[in-house]
Amino acid sequence: MIVILKTGATAEQVSEVKSFLEEKGFSIHFSEGVEKTLLGAVGAPDQDKELLKGQLVAYPQVEDVHIIAKPYKLVNRDFHPDNTVIDVCGVKIGGPEVVVMAGPCTVENPEMLFETAQMVKESGAKILRGGAYKPSTSPYSFHGMGIEGLKLLREAKGRTGLPIITEVMDTRDVDLVGEYTDIFQVGTRNMANFSLLKEIGNTRIPVMLKRGMSSTIEEWLQAAEYIASRGNYDIIMCERGIRTFETAYRNVLDVNAIGEIHQRSHLPVCGDASHGTGRWQLVPSSTKAALAAGADCLMIEVHPNPRVALKDGAQSQTFSDFRRLMSELRPLAEAIGRSM
Amino acid sequence: MIVILKTGATAEQVSEVKSFLEEKGFSIHFSEGVEKTLLGAVGAPDQDKELLKGQLVAYPQVEDVHIIAKPYKLVNRDFHPDNTVIDVCGVKIGGPEVVVMAGPCTVENPEMLFETAQMVKESGAKILRGGAYKPSTSPYSFHGMGIEGLKLLREAKGRTGLPIITEVMDTRDVDLVGEYTDIFQVGTRNMANFSLLKEIGNTRIPVMLKRGMSSTIEEWLQAAEYIASRGNYDIIMCERGIRTFETAYRNVLDVNAIGEIHQRSHLPVCGDASHGTGRWQLVPSSTKAALAAGADCLMIEVHPNPRVALKDGAQSQTFSDFRRLMSELRPLAEAIGRSM
Amino acid sequence: MIVILKTGATAEQVSEVKSFLEEKGFSIHFSEGVEKTLLGAVGAPDQDKELLKGQLVAYPQVEDVHIIAKPYKLVNRDFHPDNTVIDVCGVKIGGPEVVVMAGPCTVENPEMLFETAQMVKESGAKILRGGAYKPSTSPYSFHGMGIEGLKLLREAKGRTGLPIITEVMDTRDVDLVGEYTDIFQVGTRNMANFSLLKEIGNTRIPVMLKRGMSSTIEEWLQAAEYIASRGNYDIIMCERGIRTFETAYRNVLDVNAIGEIHQRSHLPVCGDASHGTGRWQLVPSSTKAALAAGADCLMIEVHPNPRVALKDGAQSQTFSDFRRLMSELRPLAEAIGRSM
Amino acid sequence: MIVILKTGATAEQVSEVKSFLEEKGFSIHFSEGVEKTLLGAVGAPDQDKELLKGQLVAYPQVEDVHIIAKPYKLVNRDFHPDNTVIDVCGVKIGGPEVVVMAGPCTVENPEMLFETAQMVKESGAKILRGGAYKPSTSPYSFHGMGIEGLKLLREAKGRTGLPIITEVMDTRDVDLVGEYTDIFQVGTRNMANFSLLKEIGNTRIPVMLKRGMSSTIEEWLQAAEYIASRGNYDIIMCERGIRTFETAYRNVLDVNAIGEIHQRSHLPVCGDASHGTGRWQLVPSSTKAALAAGADCLMIEVHPNPRVALKDGAQSQTFSDFRRLMSELRPLAEAIGRSM
Repeated sequence: MIVILKTGATAEQVSEVKSFLEEKGFSIHFSEGVEKTLLGAVGAPDQDKELLKGQLVAYPQVEDVHIIAKPYKLVNRDFHPDNTVIDVCGVKIGGPEVVVMAGPCTVENPEMLFETAQMVKESGAKILRGGAYKPSTSPYSFHGMGIEGLKLLREAKGRTGLPIITEVMDTRDVDLVGEYTDIFQVGTRNMANFSLLKEIGNTRIPVMLKRGMSSTIEEWLQAAEYIASRGNYDIIMCERGIRTFETAYRNVLDVNAIGEIHQRSHLPVCGDASHGTGRWQLVPSSTKAALAAGADCLMIEVHPNPRVALKDGAQSQTFSDFRRLMSELRPLAEAIGRSM
Repeated sequence: MIVILKTGATAEQVSEVKSFLEEKGFSIHFSEGVEKTLLGAVGAPDQDKELLKGQLVAYPQVEDVHIIAKPYKLVNRDFHPDNTVIDVCGVKIGGPEVVVMAGPCTVENPEMLFETAQMVKESGAKILRGGAYKPSTSPYSFHGMGIEGLKLLREAKGRTGLPIITEVMDTRDVDLVGEYTDIFQVGTRNMANFSLLKEIGNTRIPVMLKRGMSSTIEEWLQAAEYIASRGNYDIIMCERGIRTFETAYRNVLDVNAIGEIHQRSHLPVCGDASHGTGRWQLVPSSTKAALAAGADCLMIEVHPNPRVALKDGAQSQTFSDFRRLMSELRPLAEAIGRSM
Repeated sequence: MIVILKTGATAEQVSEVKSFLEEKGFSIHFSEGVEKTLLGAVGAPDQDKELLKGQLVAYPQVEDVHIIAKPYKLVNRDFHPDNTVIDVCGVKIGGPEVVVMAGPCTVENPEMLFETAQMVKESGAKILRGGAYKPSTSPYSFHGMGIEGLKLLREAKGRTGLPIITEVMDTRDVDLVGEYTDIFQVGTRNMANFSLLKEIGNTRIPVMLKRGMSSTIEEWLQAAEYIASRGNYDIIMCERGIRTFETAYRNVLDVNAIGEIHQRSHLPVCGDASHGTGRWQLVPSSTKAALAAGADCLMIEVHPNPRVALKDGAQSQTFSDFRRLMSELRPLAEAIGRSM
Repeated sequence: MIVILKTGATAEQVSEVKSFLEEKGFSIHFSEGVEKTLLGAVGAPDQDKELLKGQLVAYPQVEDVHIIAKPYKLVNRDFHPDNTVIDVCGVKIGGPEVVVMAGPCTVENPEMLFETAQMVKESGAKILRGGAYKPSTSPYSFHGMGIEGLKLLREAKGRTGLPIITEVMDTRDVDLVGEYTDIFQVGTRNMANFSLLKEIGNTRIPVMLKRGMSSTIEEWLQAAEYIASRGNYDIIMCERGIRTFETAYRNVLDVNAIGEIHQRSHLPVCGDASHGTGRWQLVPSSTKAALAAGADCLMIEVHPNPRVALKDGAQSQTFSDFRRLMSELRPLAEAIGRSM
């Protein structure tokens, strides 16, 4: 931790800050610059740096505090250099194969689900997605089939052999959803729902953690740390687009984040261009971008007929669009030395 | 709803969209422009416009869809022109008086709470704030005293007569927190936690709904609509700063939002410059800005000694800073024709 | 400057970085933390820190570099504690009086300009604004009257005695515009037009520097430093709203910035809620917010009939709206101990 | 254009707006919804819609105005379905080949330029980049070699045969730079420097227009329209990253924009992951993403020794990194049916 003192801070004021830090167990290195005096505080690895920063800047003589150590440990590649590979019913996520997760935004009825599951399997997807509990900005919209949706997903898995991923939104539903799903999905609006993260951390079911739509890389990794700190290490980081000033698409798929998470963390990364663009016309080009940037898995929304979809018709691929996209992704995966 | 067709859409394609809309119960008005054909769809007020938009843009001949009706009704001033005034144990929020809510970020122990409560009361605050359950970006930080904190808040109310406001973060805690608090606070990270909004909507306890840090005005009003749609109409909208590219402060307090919510909705608005700036040095100037922009209440974090605060020391006012600020706010309130 | 080395950096790698810094004239303080090694580099005040940071992070063993000294000197309050007060033909900007600059977005014809100038003077404005050269997002829109507009502004000044402010957009126009105007305006799109800043820096005419719509406080102060570094110190910093994800208004007026610039710099600050909101309905509440936050001057667009305005009709106040606003601002100014 | 009237607008108020529009030459279609009355205004293609919107919302009975027609014509794919292919000294940009533009951020001296030019040519780059006039946030930093830099670029072209691209920042330099360069570069800070766009539009030299760091797709295309409206149609749109809340990298490379520009416009698109990430470690993965998303050309900064680079060392590839990247890009290009 580096503490920068204001220009003109008196010797007494400097010493006051020094005492504060020493009481917390830090050793202090002085650094008297031309304009500013700095205090470098080392040792005391168990102190909560963010807390101390808040206390330090309450001193009027403190101009700023820089925290050096990353606020996440378990998910940090520095302490765990090898890639995490997650085994989901035999499908390996984080290994040489790029895994496609596909399916409808929302389970609407048995026919559409089974039909879609069959098609995505035949096209090469390895995991089936589908929402049973759906967040919706409006209280008057469809919020998913609930437990009936979960049962249909289980049946779809039985028919196709595809493991499933589905969202959980409420701490009270973790046990129930956990009985049905192979991977929990934490949605963008719940990335910082810490109660939910803790509950999921208490299970041993893999989880895909979507990035909050305005969350920084550091906040996102700390959300993963919440889950890991409870003992659940099977975490997939899903880049699903961030909120910016641009209104031509719903979100901006941040491909830089794919490379960045791979550098900072050992966890596998998923790219979701369906949400990352919000427009079916852009899903193919941006899904390819995510693959080329190094995503370990790809999430793609597919619907037999987006014109009647009960949610996210705007960003769903039709069956024929999806088949074409899969045929285009495969050679790309090979060109970067991976399989699909 | 206005549907814009692509340049070059055929008569058959136009008719396909027209049929889609007519089946949903709309009447269609054609508008053939120089470049584009538009379909104006009217009637069918109960249709979910956002859903239909998703379905419509799945047609390749559709370029865009504009939704005209606002997606919130109960909180819309169009249908409820008079200001909502909320009575919290005799304190009126939304009337001519500007109400100050003050107290520590987090309840840390009895002494600091009671001391702060007494001081803010004497300085003119009408409501006591204090966190018992605290969201924290890091899993390793202090997360509040929980039920013990709630009990201390009740005792502080007993001692000072100040009604209290405290945050609830988990659907499972709504009943418990509801036994203690006079106003629920929904934090910025939970503005789109729809399960939580529904549970709070089922109570009849007033709620202060903080704006999501990257939520639009329209999303924020829809979150309020969630609560209102369950029958709880006592909602305070709290502007607490938004996330932008600027890093000099934690958030940008959006004073435009104060005027905008007053225009669109009948609900009272709170301005929280403690979170809206994240820096104690900026809290006075930005709190005054919120007041001048028309905020009905003001939230201000105060701590007996921010240098030992267990949370948000960086943005807390000391007792003397708070007293000075209150003395500066009062003439401002009078200058805009309100009391404090 | 603090250089943070990667976990696992070898002694040789550390020494390589140390040599690099010593060659530049720095003294090095080591700080060996539990996880990371830091190098504190002090001395060498004339080195370009941003440049060195770029070179340092090119070393694979360097994780990050924190620059401590602020990249602006002349406009930094640390080295010039007293407020700058700018005298524009006898009007003092930055002193106890809050100065209102008002007038049309664009000079459209003699009548509308003279009529507006007379009205804003009578209502208490002290400076007349009006555009002769106008930036416009579309190449097909009105781009201002050019030199004829400048001549009309001079005539309006002759009639009312109000000094004028007008925008300059092109390095080739600085001399010409300088013959007519009392204050140069640098618009938001040109805040980082460094050629233009240099030319204006070479004059001795006061300049109002609008914040770039997505510029940080630090970039904005560096833009001011460009002007000051050429010898022109009469700079007004104008907060005019920043670009965010919100679409309900054109920009978000950042009142935090008003307090922040006052803390970091000795330069006066202007608040422009016309551009900061982009909607006439919000101009009164957000202008009051800017005043309460401590703005030294306020810019307000006024038009005799916004329904025929050739630019920015959406954000212009009518004469009666402006008169009412001025009557509301005056008591507010007094309530914070200033005059108007 | 669609005009939405406020709930409760009187017949007289509706008629007032109708008259306004009819006077401008529009035909009006009424659309009386359950809550709102809409006026659809068609015809009058030459009216400035943005101007009229400003005037219309000045009417208190007008709630909002939606503009339907795109504000750009010449660069709009609707009116020019075929891709534009630009011939730069025999190099075709916008055709089946993906063209790599590489070189140093800034021309620093003859040796580094010639060495780099030779290497990037051997590795397969087709165009040489290098800055002679450099924008710099600080007035105290290196601003380029100016005309000496231009002369060196010409000499590098003579030695390697590579056409060159270099930035122009000032209207006064357009003629001079035009004597040396094969492609003008307009930098992100000058995307909305309309004077500069007009000057470049008057030449017949190809131009690469970088996206403003917070410019929308629509503003960016209008900036291109400025150039085209003067008769210069050889415009390359360069996505170079946008500014967001994320601080882990300098910008967020927006791959959605690559697909979106291809849908809306016939102009070729360049992807610049050097600026789009700002960190050399992320340049390879994000450059691949840009290629996979469909970029027609790629810009990559290369320096013989980034540790002594006078600018942008943080984002420059070394020679060996660049060679490796080129060898990885080639099979990717082939996998999507293009050559390189």
